[in-house]
Amino acid sequence: LDAGRMRSARRLVGNLHPAELARLLESLPLRERGVIWEMIGPDIEGDVLVELADEVRNGLIEGMATDELIAAVEGMEIDDLADLLAELPDALNREVLKSLDHQDHERLTQILAYDEDSAGGLMNVDIVTVRPDVTLDVVQRYLRARGEIPDGTDSIFVVDRDNKYKGALFLSRILTADQEKLVGEVMSTNVVPIPASARSKEVVWEFEHRDLLSAPVADEHNRVVGRITVDDVVDVIREEAEHSLMGAAGLDEEDDMFAPVAKSARRRALWLGINLATAFLAASVVDLFQTTIDKIVLLAVLMPVVPSMGGIAGTQSLTIMTRAIALGQIDKTNARRIFRKEVLVGVLNGFGWAAVVALFTLLWFKDWRIGAVIAGAMCINLVIAAAAGFAIPMTMKRMNIDPALAGGVVLTTITDVVGYMAFLGLGAMFLI
Amino acid sequence: LDAGRMRSARRLVGNLHPAELARLLESLPLRERGVIWEMIGPDIEGDVLVELADEVRNGLIEGMATDELIAAVEGMEIDDLADLLAELPDALNREVLKSLDHQDHERLTQILAYDEDSAGGLMNVDIVTVRPDVTLDVVQRYLRARGEIPDGTDSIFVVDRDNKYKGALFLSRILTADQEKLVGEVMSTNVVPIPASARSKEVVWEFEHRDLLSAPVADEHNRVVGRITVDDVVDVIREEAEHSLMGAAGLDEEDDMFAPVAKSARRRALWLGINLATAFLAASVVDLFQTTIDKIVLLAVLMPVVPSMGGIAGTQSLTIMTRAIALGQIDKTNARRIFRKEVLVGVLNGFGWAAVVALFTLLWFKDWRIGAVIAGAMCINLVIAAAAGFAIPMTMKRMNIDPALAGGVVLTTITDVVGYMAFLGLGAMFLI
Repeated sequence: LDAGRMRSARRLVGNLHPAELARLLESLPLRERGVIWEMIGPDIEGDVLVELADEVRNGLIEGMATDELIAAVEGMEIDDLADLLAELPDALNREVLKSLDHQDHERLTQILAYDEDSAGGLMNVDIVTVRPDVTLDVVQRYLRARGEIPDGTDSIFVVDRDNKYKGALFLSRILTADQEKLVGEVMSTNVVPIPASARSKEVVWEFEHRDLLSAPVADEHNRVVGRITVDDVVDVIREEAEHSLMGAAGLDEEDDMFAPVAKSARRRALWLGINLATAFLAASVVDLFQTTIDKIVLLAVLMPVVPSMGGIAGTQSLTIMTRAIALGQIDKTNARRIFRKEVLVGVLNGFGWAAVVALFTLLWFKDWRIGAVIAGAMCINLVIAAAAGFAIPMTMKRMNIDPALAGGVVLTTITDVVGYMAFLGLGAMFLI
Repeated sequence: LDAGRMRSARRLVGNLHPAELARLLESLPLRERGVIWEMIGPDIEGDVLVELADEVRNGLIEGMATDELIAAVEGMEIDDLADLLAELPDALNREVLKSLDHQDHERLTQILAYDEDSAGGLMNVDIVTVRPDVTLDVVQRYLRARGEIPDGTDSIFVVDRDNKYKGALFLSRILTADQEKLVGEVMSTNVVPIPASARSKEVVWEFEHRDLLSAPVADEHNRVVGRITVDDVVDVIREEAEHSLMGAAGLDEEDDMFAPVAKSARRRALWLGINLATAFLAASVVDLFQTTIDKIVLLAVLMPVVPSMGGIAGTQSLTIMTRAIALGQIDKTNARRIFRKEVLVGVLNGFGWAAVVALFTLLWFKDWRIGAVIAGAMCINLVIAAAAGFAIPMTMKRMNIDPALAGGVVLTTITDVVGYMAFLGLGAMFLI
């Protein structure tokens, strides 16, 4: 980055949206990242910090003085600030809280009281409420006197004198309905408030399936305490999806692509270690059949085929089940039917590919007996794979483990062990 | 389903939202699905159809008479109707188009002119526009005379006399700003219209990174032709995520969980067939070393370890790269650095786990030479795996193939072949 490029970089940085700046910072190696970070104005530094992956953010915050950080968080939206504070060390946290004015301090404390991963943690407390027994005309005068409703607001909430939720009043209705009508007549009552204690997952479900743009959040007494907007829900959906994809490879979506090599290597080592253990388990199965292999070395040659096919067939069942569970489509009444279907698919594909493999083996090695053995092993392993692909996520769900994260490892361990056992076992029985 | 349960089922169906009904239908076996479908009122049948997975929808439509279908689509939103029509056979399509009134017909034709997977295909054409040179007071009178703005609208669009986009006018501003002000003074100009030809992916990016609730869509002359709301964007995000997850196992997220066994088996067979070919490729590598294995049967026992570790390490690099590419974080300037990093991580983990495996093998078989061979093979395979995990998605991207779908198969083929080759090759060189 020389002087000329510094100028154009500065111009670029000035034009980007916080989220775009965050993606840019994440895609820069550490040194360049520091240079660009310095160019970002303190007015949007806070918004950029919220958008960053955890590890990248922590790296940048470590390099900031406390007063710089306080300047950065000024003017942030309260719900975003709450998300950021949840990630800061306690000492910094206290400093930032001290710097806020009384009203913001109180609002923030309210949000922080809820779990970050709940409706209360997602909500914004900056809400506008009106009473049901006033006319739209009065509402309009009130809103004008109040001033400032955030851009992108589609509705305000109707509450009674105890702040209990009554309904949602769409801004579009205020603008189009007869001004003499009462709020209670015009409001929409089919927008149901989300309990503050609801999990993010349930919030996503509500938004996604009811096509909401925003929703009221209520405490256990049905009092409106905040408002969730769909942009925060979109973030949750994105994070969940990435978590599943990355987690299946033992990775964390919040990691820094440019973390030091040693750190990345250490982090990825865990998954490799688990795999090494399962690989040695498979090897110990093969070890049982040393004498068999010693006599018929062809068995060693064809050994990789059966476990590998089982792994694929099992992963297919596992993926379907994991998704169906995530979508809440599995219950007692249909579980048995799905199990039967998956196993039958396993049987059909087992027999079908067994025939192909037997034929192929016969042509390659001119030995029908080894073809029969591999075909038999294939049938066994594909049926077991289908059953395991069904049973693993069901069991993990019952144990409250996310099947998207660890399901694959357990599955391939089973299909490897069964695959080697079936193929070499049948070989030992019928070929010697 | 007996008479009593039929009654309660009917009540349940009456209370569910179309999206919830769609999930319910998808989770029901074919016979029950037909029974519940009959209970759904024609007024929301269309909305349910839009939400269904392709295969489930097609099954239900096959069972409907044309006039039933026409009744079902009545009252659907135009953008949803366009999505549905894109899935219908041409003959039905014409019938439905004929049944629409002139205005809807015209609107629909407008949307159908765009690719389903573009901003034009996602948009709704039912938009409200105003001129910049009128006062808010005039806007209010206009809106009231016009009546009916859809619930959830957060902004209307400002256009000049040629319908060219000038800005967005948030409803919140209409309600809070001085009524004598001109629209041009109050409108927001930082909402940039999305070109109708933009891909869905770019639309998602805009919404996600600019926290939009709705955005104007403009044609190539900057004329406003429609409006995209965030709920449609959420659907795209969800579909993309599921497509990646399911596609990696050779599955289609639009398939019916209760499709007949034979159909499912046939569909999944393709992926198994590809895998069988790669498994035989691996077997043919092993075949080259028959005489080596014949002499040292221990090699067959330890054979699974090296390819398996390579598969895991490679998948980690592949997952990170695939995600970074999807997020647009990879370019020429940082690609080389990431490549170097991934390979170095491979080297570190290669050496680290090589040492562990060597030690373990030594303890198990009391033979340091076989420990050295497996350690050497492990180093080679983990470095190649890291390089392949980097190179495969980069190459696929250049060839316009989605790395999330086929990357894993290519990768494990490489790590299997290299793994067997390195382990058995080193064994042949140093142990005999």
